[in-house]
Amino acid sequence: MHSKLLDQLIQSLRCLPGVGPKSAQRMALYLMERNRTGAALLSETITEALQRLGRCQQCRALTEEAVCRLCSNPNRDQSLLCIVGSPADMFAIEQAGSYNGMYFLLTGHLSPIDGIGPQEIGISELLTLLDSRPVQEVILANNPTVEGEATASYIAALLRDRELSVSRIAHGVPVGGELEFVDGGTLSHAFNGRLRLK
Amino acid sequence: MHSKLLDQLIQSLRCLPGVGPKSAQRMALYLMERNRTGAALLSETITEALQRLGRCQQCRALTEEAVCRLCSNPNRDQSLLCIVGSPADMFAIEQAGSYNGMYFLLTGHLSPIDGIGPQEIGISELLTLLDSRPVQEVILANNPTVEGEATASYIAALLRDRELSVSRIAHGVPVGGELEFVDGGTLSHAFNGRLRLK
Ligand SMILES: [Zn+2]
Ligand SMILES: [Zn+2]
Repeated sequence: MHSKLLDQLIQSLRCLPGVGPKSAQRMALYLMERNRTGAALLSETITEALQRLGRCQQCRALTEEAVCRLCSNPNRDQSLLCIVGSPADMFAIEQAGSYNGMYFLLTGHLSPIDGIGPQEIGISELLTLLDSRPVQEVILANNPTVEGEATASYIAALLRDRELSVSRIAHGVPVGGELEFVDGGTLSHAFNGRLRLK
Repeated sequence: MHSKLLDQLIQSLRCLPGVGPKSAQRMALYLMERNRTGAALLSETITEALQRLGRCQQCRALTEEAVCRLCSNPNRDQSLLCIVGSPADMFAIEQAGSYNGMYFLLTGHLSPIDGIGPQEIGISELLTLLDSRPVQEVILANNPTVEGEATASYIAALLRDRELSVSRIAHGVPVGGELEFVDGGTLSHAFNGRLRLK
């Protein structure tokens, strides 16, 4: 409006999820008028994260190390592998606090209509991981949506002939909902009541 | 959690107004997993804004130029000066679209309890501006809060002996409310029905 650069800042803040024009304006004014220290730190942290955050070689979560802190934690149970469809789901399960095994992060769920097949979501990396780690049980924690269920079924079928158990977290999480919005108690319950698929 | 750097990114996003832990986590994952181009642009724009955004010599709004685009626009009416308490209020009035004069931005409102006196909010800069510009009417658009009213009254008293009119925007804006949240129509109405104080 009265400054091209301020307009650009407002516009660039709109790339953040859930931030509309009014919020972006408030954020821009706040950063420049009231918290330049916070703004500088934010800018530096984004730049550093862009440079250094890659994927964990084991679970494929975002990390600045070759293997993330969770995967290299000797207190985690190496015999359990929980498969999730997004990092937010992994966060939600960790915050629930009842699961102490390992993870594997798919990049989304199968969706043939959108051209998203097994290779796109990381199935071959999952099989490589299973070949090299002492996993005894795979817990399918994909979202209870159509795509999540299809992905879980696909993986269960793929693992049918392997020497390991395959389970699906219990329906305690609302069907059609998103795992990351489920409260910790419900998630714990869903883990404890998981169904053996094989 | 599993990455120190990702935790730092989430933490630094929490400096944004209205962003709690859950939103910050969503934002961090979105930036790093799905929109690294947007993240890079955001980081660069914040850095550039920090380096280049200063205050307009006339209205004191944020700008990368010595005098902002609004103040240097020859189509604005130089005889009207609207005084606001925040840049968001200036934005709201501009978006209402019915005012075509100039602005002066106070840095907040008088609040003796908090040690905020005339010098802190820019009253001496206002007087300097009035000495040098062809202003015929000062429109007090301070928020209709206790501090806003006190500030408007203080300025009205200070300008009593000058050769100019002083008006207050009409109460049409909800008393006790914040100007920036008022819709454009109400703001236009408040401008048209402004009360002459002197
Ligand atoms: Zn990992
Ligand atoms: Zn200006």
